[in-house]
Amino acid sequence: MNIVEFVKLSLGEWRSQRSAHHLAFQHFEAVTSEIEIIGLDEEDSQVIELCKVNNIDPKLATSPFKMTWEGESDWDDDETMSGSTILVPIPDGDDLTKGKLLREQGYAETIPSIGEYEIVEDGTFILSTKYDRAAAEEKIWFATPNLRFRVSLIKTSNGAGVTTASFSSEIRSLKSSEG
Amino acid sequence: MNIVEFVKLSLGEWRSQRSAHHLAFQHFEAVTSEIEIIGLDEEDSQVIELCKVNNIDPKLATSPFKMTWEGESDWDDDETMSGSTILVPIPDGDDLTKGKLLREQGYAETIPSIGEYEIVEDGTFILSTKYDRAAAEEKIWFATPNLRFRVSLIKTSNGAGVTTASFSSEIRSLKSSEG
Repeated sequence: MNIVEFVKLSLGEWRSQRSAHHLAFQHFEAVTSEIEIIGLDEEDSQVIELCKVNNIDPKLATSPFKMTWEGESDWDDDETMSGSTILVPIPDGDDLTKGKLLREQGYAETIPSIGEYEIVEDGTFILSTKYDRAAAEEKIWFATPNLRFRVSLIKTSNGAGVTTASFSSEIRSLKSSEG
Repeated sequence: MNIVEFVKLSLGEWRSQRSAHHLAFQHFEAVTSEIEIIGLDEEDSQVIELCKVNNIDPKLATSPFKMTWEGESDWDDDETMSGSTILVPIPDGDDLTKGKLLREQGYAETIPSIGEYEIVEDGTFILSTKYDRAAAEEKIWFATPNLRFRVSLIKTSNGAGVTTASFSSEIRSLKSSEG
């Protein structure tokens, strides 16, 4: 599995169930959401801009995509969480199994981020991102082409402690194949 | 990481947060529990008996252990779920990274089970178990020596579909080091 194949498998609409464990307080949070992932042209102006902001040659952008989500948490029934972000993989030279991932807007902070990704032997995509006051680690893998899982850890900035662990089950929506 | 090291790291008392996703209905279940894992002597009579029931030479038993749990689900506040089981790893010859795992009593059915385990390069323990009417896959890995994660999938018996995915965050209880 390489990043081109991984992004291709990820395109479409997904129905997500996410559970977050806030470890210090043994608190559970449940979130349901709809996620849409669409491929972008490598010459898309948003892709080029995100590369430039990060001082990276836009020619290196490979399989960029846009992710949009809309969800509801059981913490606050009245609030709908929604957003979108552009993600741009920048492979390490000719090696399509690892590199940098530019993100227009991170999960943990509302600023652009650069993560390091690697796709390991069993096909799991692993992303590590350092923020100012935290670090994040995300693992995503496919059980079937229509079912993927995601484990996300939010760590203290030195990486030693995990404050939140969350798990998502993402099922491809039928809508995708109808669209 | 081999099975001897993995079991050794697992010994002690753990405080567990588990979220189950029932995929067809997007239903969430939250379970908190206390888990205790204690090492057993390889010549313990329960270990020898479990080997014999499975027609396996008891001399092959390596790092057997007993797991006890007591938990509460948000599905039924009045009921406490508790139980215990004996687990006996049987390595494949001299290879301590894979083999069979005998279990006195399974999660999905109340009969003894034999699973196949493997510890892969990044230290993740992967267990696959076939039951009469279902199959289970479990991945367990340590984030730190005092924090481990577990992803469990319950599959249809042919392994093609996943009916339930669950995620556990297990934190070592302070009690362990005091005991």
